Amino acid sequence: MKIAVDAMGGDHAPREVVRGAVQAARENGFSLILVGQEPRIREELSQADAPAGEIEIVHASEVVEMCETPGIALRKKKDSSIRVGLSLVAEGRADAFVSAGNSGAVMAGGLLILKKIPGVDRPAITATIPTPHGPIVLIDAGANVDCKPAHLLQFALMGEAYARKFLGISCPRIAVISIGEEDSKGSDLTRETCEMIRRTNLRFLGNAEGRDFFSGKADVFVCDGFVGNVVVKTMEGMAQALGPFLKTEIDKSLLAKAGALLARCAIRNLRKRLDYAEYGGAPLLGVRGGVMICHGASDRKAIKNAIVAAGAMARFRLDEEIARSISAQGSVPL
Amino acid sequence: MKIAVDAMGGDHAPREVVRGAVQAARENGFSLILVGQEPRIREELSQADAPAGEIEIVHASEVVEMCETPGIALRKKKDSSIRVGLSLVAEGRADAFVSAGNSGAVMAGGLLILKKIPGVDRPAITATIPTPHGPIVLIDAGANVDCKPAHLLQFALMGEAYARKFLGISCPRIAVISIGEEDSKGSDLTRETCEMIRRTNLRFLGNAEGRDFFSGKADVFVCDGFVGNVVVKTMEGMAQALGPFLKTEIDKSLLAKAGALLARCAIRNLRKRLDYAEYGGAPLLGVRGGVMICHGASDRKAIKNAIVAAGAMARFRLDEEIARSISAQGSVPL
Repeated sequence: MKIAVDAMGGDHAPREVVRGAVQAARENGFSLILVGQEPRIREELSQADAPAGEIEIVHASEVVEMCETPGIALRKKKDSSIRVGLSLVAEGRADAFVSAGNSGAVMAGGLLILKKIPGVDRPAITATIPTPHGPIVLIDAGANVDCKPAHLLQFALMGEAYARKFLGISCPRIAVISIGEEDSKGSDLTRETCEMIRRTNLRFLGNAEGRDFFSGKADVFVCDGFVGNVVVKTMEGMAQALGPFLKTEIDKSLLAKAGALLARCAIRNLRKRLDYAEYGGAPLLGVRGGVMICHGASDRKAIKNAIVAAGAMARFRLDEEIARSISAQGSVPL
Repeated sequence: MKIAVDAMGGDHAPREVVRGAVQAARENGFSLILVGQEPRIREELSQADAPAGEIEIVHASEVVEMCETPGIALRKKKDSSIRVGLSLVAEGRADAFVSAGNSGAVMAGGLLILKKIPGVDRPAITATIPTPHGPIVLIDAGANVDCKPAHLLQFALMGEAYARKFLGISCPRIAVISIGEEDSKGSDLTRETCEMIRRTNLRFLGNAEGRDFFSGKADVFVCDGFVGNVVVKTMEGMAQALGPFLKTEIDKSLLAKAGALLARCAIRNLRKRLDYAEYGGAPLLGVRGGVMICHGASDRKAIKNAIVAAGAMARFRLDEEIARSISAQGSVPL
């Protein structure tokens, strides 16, 4: 098992990426390849007290910046860390690729270099969200803005395979995100998607609403990438706002201040549990091999968690499971 | 100033509605009309110790159930509390209508009976959401599933008028909800909407992401009713999940338990502040007169708050302000 890591990707690269990689290698015994500008990576490794040879380096001279247009950047920068890292997976030299860099470029590169799993039209980003009832899966979290019902059906199949193999949910319950529980509610897209999923053998519950994410009603929530991206970022923003919100309330009373001091650890843990970055990253499902897309703001801990998750995805051969699951629905008219 | 209240609408009607109305009349001095089945309203009023004559009653024999298809229910039930209540506003006998009943029927009835403000194609539901930086406005929160750019432009104009007149924000900052900050990011709908809003004199910031709801970046967030409904319900679900989430963490340590006891009031206040039902309801903007749509689960307090908000909307003549604002953009090609 070998994971390639984009050392140049993210707001805090290369430092935080290299530190996260060193942690994953030491604490979790991962075999890693850091991809990027070798001199900078070497410097960071030496500052992290990592002896030469502990982590492999593959040089890539170029960096795709966060603000670049994905397609153009990929075409122009043939020696970017994203292209080189994905190629390592395509050539079988690595089992998965982790990047906190330009997510559009990672997605486009995944399609271009790794290719799609047969039967998948659109790879999708898969967010894992902590809830009081355990983690839920939201797919697509932002890869595809405009979708057809057949795409959402594929997302359902991929999300089901992920929840089953990766999260260990034995028979995941699938729902389509809509604006009412009745089948008639929603858009043309959600109604047609519901009809298609009903014809499969998935454990399908029909429509779910925004409040159902936290109600324990379903395990996998299917939507287009526009809705999914807005939802995931709304949750992220709300979790981050918890601190300032609670502080305002606590500052109002001395008693509450004393209490907050005692409960500080619990409150910190709550914020951590609500922080979806704790899951390290979101896999791009539907391409061959494993690709883990991390938050641009990822720190060393998020990178470490993403490497651990990418390792698990590769170990479970999630891409092969998805291929099996999609081909088993072969008789379903897309 | 007179507010008509749908006594039969909501999961806890008529009891909670009548109790909320009695509170609004007593504590806030509102002049009210309760609309619905007179014997049941009289009984509730007497149980609430409200002397005859304190609150006016207008009889309506029929009730639109929560599960009914709005259009059909409105057509069939000519003497429903929703139709009768809206007619009171249309006839000038009331200044606004408050209902926790079938929201689709209230919307359809608003269009049918009150009519649209000139220049408005689609009335929209307007959610007011508490954040650490003060309240923000999200429009449309669920009235229109499929929208064109011109509709979103009108939502921006209506939301701006609401934020300015009702929330007292002197020069509201407007943003379009999308999946990236750059103008190029998003769907065809968001891109074309941005172009149109840029041609107005609104204080327009361009795209905003889900995490910006809580960042203090903008005051009014514009989106189609599908996205808006999912967002508002996601926030609602997350706020409700806070309690169980925090409890799990606090139960882990005795120290945290003691602290939570002291900070209990602050934690309760936080949950209250995150509960969008505290705002009582969401106005349906774009129709003549005032319509306040309440959560089906509204209790007496939510109803009271909604009546207070409906009173303020009517006092500010928000519908006339919207008409002015839209006609001032007359030269903008829709």
